[in-house]
Amino acid sequence: ADVKKIAVIAGDGIGPEVVAEAEKILKRTEEVFGLSFETEHALFGGIAIDKKGTPLPQETLAVCQSADAVLLGAVGGPQWDNNPKELRPETGLLGIRKELGLFSNLRPAVVFDCLKDASTLKPEVLEGTDLIVVRELTGGIYFGEKYRRESAQGEEAVDTCAYNVTEVERIVRQSFEIAQKRRKKLASVDKANVLETSRLWREVVNRVAVDYPDVELEHVLVDNCAMQLLRRPSSFDVIVTENMFGDILSDEAAMLTGSIGMLSSASLGEGSFGLYEPVHGSAPDIAGQGLANPIATILSVALMFRLTFGYEKAADAIEKAVAEVLDAGHRTADIAVDKSQAISTTQMGDLIAAAI
Amino acid sequence: ADVKKIAVIAGDGIGPEVVAEAEKILKRTEEVFGLSFETEHALFGGIAIDKKGTPLPQETLAVCQSADAVLLGAVGGPQWDNNPKELRPETGLLGIRKELGLFSNLRPAVVFDCLKDASTLKPEVLEGTDLIVVRELTGGIYFGEKYRRESAQGEEAVDTCAYNVTEVERIVRQSFEIAQKRRKKLASVDKANVLETSRLWREVVNRVAVDYPDVELEHVLVDNCAMQLLRRPSSFDVIVTENMFGDILSDEAAMLTGSIGMLSSASLGEGSFGLYEPVHGSAPDIAGQGLANPIATILSVALMFRLTFGYEKAADAIEKAVAEVLDAGHRTADIAVDKSQAISTTQMGDLIAAAI
Ligand SMILES: CC(C)[C@H](C(=O)O)[C@@H](O)C(=O)O
Ligand SMILES: CC(C)[C@H](C(=O)O)[C@@H](O)C(=O)O
Repeated sequence: ADVKKIAVIAGDGIGPEVVAEAEKILKRTEEVFGLSFETEHALFGGIAIDKKGTPLPQETLAVCQSADAVLLGAVGGPQWDNNPKELRPETGLLGIRKELGLFSNLRPAVVFDCLKDASTLKPEVLEGTDLIVVRELTGGIYFGEKYRRESAQGEEAVDTCAYNVTEVERIVRQSFEIAQKRRKKLASVDKANVLETSRLWREVVNRVAVDYPDVELEHVLVDNCAMQLLRRPSSFDVIVTENMFGDILSDEAAMLTGSIGMLSSASLGEGSFGLYEPVHGSAPDIAGQGLANPIATILSVALMFRLTFGYEKAADAIEKAVAEVLDAGHRTADIAVDKSQAISTTQMGDLIAAAI
Repeated sequence: ADVKKIAVIAGDGIGPEVVAEAEKILKRTEEVFGLSFETEHALFGGIAIDKKGTPLPQETLAVCQSADAVLLGAVGGPQWDNNPKELRPETGLLGIRKELGLFSNLRPAVVFDCLKDASTLKPEVLEGTDLIVVRELTGGIYFGEKYRRESAQGEEAVDTCAYNVTEVERIVRQSFEIAQKRRKKLASVDKANVLETSRLWREVVNRVAVDYPDVELEHVLVDNCAMQLLRRPSSFDVIVTENMFGDILSDEAAMLTGSIGMLSSASLGEGSFGLYEPVHGSAPDIAGQGLANPIATILSVALMFRLTFGYEKAADAIEKAVAEVLDAGHRTADIAVDKSQAISTTQMGDLIAAAI
């Protein structure tokens, strides 16, 4: 089979532990499905700051650029939180998104059966919730000009939010296409009653919509969306929005499922290249203890198979294996009702691998 | 007694109906507490567009400026949604905030006993939730320079977000002072890992905090706050944040209480002047039918009494009257379990007035 190159970035905190289990799954799918992967590890985030003096070393970028996909654990931790900007893990995160052209972040927010009681929402409200937030990832206020200046009212800070037609159009088209393969509903979120970037956004959405007449489109103001996610989460299918709104709404959506520890994400650019990572963070408090749940990272591999490699069967097999192991009652500490029965990170990885 | 001048802006949709009931309450407190009010009505929002060709006529501004406080119903409706910017109700809203210097928007998010089942959150999660969002209202991306320009990637739209030290400091001080009178906890929400305005914000918060050592301060990133509001709403006391984040988070917070139809708000400037309004909108679908719930507007009067006039006793009496009427089982349609038993807008107003 043709060999796929995967850049593996373990990162900080529980990152190395969960990524190790995801690599087990890669190996297992090689055996079972005759696939072939070449993995290359690279330093990124806090560990790269410590070892290389920068969160995103040039070598790491080169490893990613020569790969077909990137698997990322998690980055960050309190020890780097007060560093100057260039020496902070999140600067690496913003850098890798921009350098790799990952303009689209896909965050499926689904409810796992075994976790539906973990949500703070009532089960009947959550029932049927299965949505995906598509967040623009390389534009907007995240990447606009930032500076300080003196004003008559004391020092002033400025951030600039800019979007051009090309940036909006590519993510909007992608979202319509994702919606076409799902329940054919797209909610475009903006603040068109206040922001010029939102008015441009809405114009582009309306123009592009003409090419997708089978998709039902609604425009939702961002404040209203924050409410509707709480009121009628199951009514959403695909939500597309700009970078800052997407940061907020995708976290709100993930949290309301109660399944945030199990959710995976994909960051995509042009073509099939993508970066895949669990939604949960680096959880420094439980790092190195074998307590982390590797499922979100393992499901990120399934997402990679589906979106970057087109390995549908293997992706299905991973997801089925996860469901089977959960159905059999196996739980890591974070999702165990009886913590004394919890299995470790590696045990969970082994069980899922064996179930494939 | 000294006569207080109140500018009354009924606005659109159910605005006139709910404001009429709030005026009954003003009258009633004049009788019972020997207070004295002079009310002057002014056109604003959609109705002002229709009658005067602008959402915020100069006369209206003058009426507000010569008043001690403003009582606002609600503005907006579908018939003005596609108007050009200068002829839209929300342009009036942004204008009145800026012109009256209302830099601070206070949104208490409390759970009404009779509505605790209306929330989509589990009752045990909601238990004890009583928070207030303080939103900066005249700065940030709402009021920064906005424009379009040509770029190599097609037309580009730009919004500018700016904050200076003075703007941040006044709202932060106010928030610390509010927290001192409550449970002494302040959460300052920003995106300091990405935005320069947030870094300035956080610097100012940390500097001002030194003057309020009895208040427990936490910095929360906006995406995390959107999650924590869902996970542990009762742990928040006062939340202070910039304009755009406040727009989103205050709506999320209001919705999760399940009591959004009953919540009041205050917009304050320097001194005691304030604009008071219900959080709910103009609800054009039920306008003119006597179905609207006047309680949020009536409670906005109580807030006005407390924050602008210092009429603590009368404010208490209004809130007590509302509680009594609800405890006696009276409900407008929006909060009635058995809709056939629902009372009308005016009946609710009469009952509350009589209970004072
Ligand atoms: C760490 C931070 C810069 C980042 C973001 O805001 O994009 C994170 O919140 C995320 O959503 O991946
Ligand atoms: C109508 C709109 C401009 C306004 C805002 O965003 O401030 C509204 O959402 C609000 O919160 O009062």
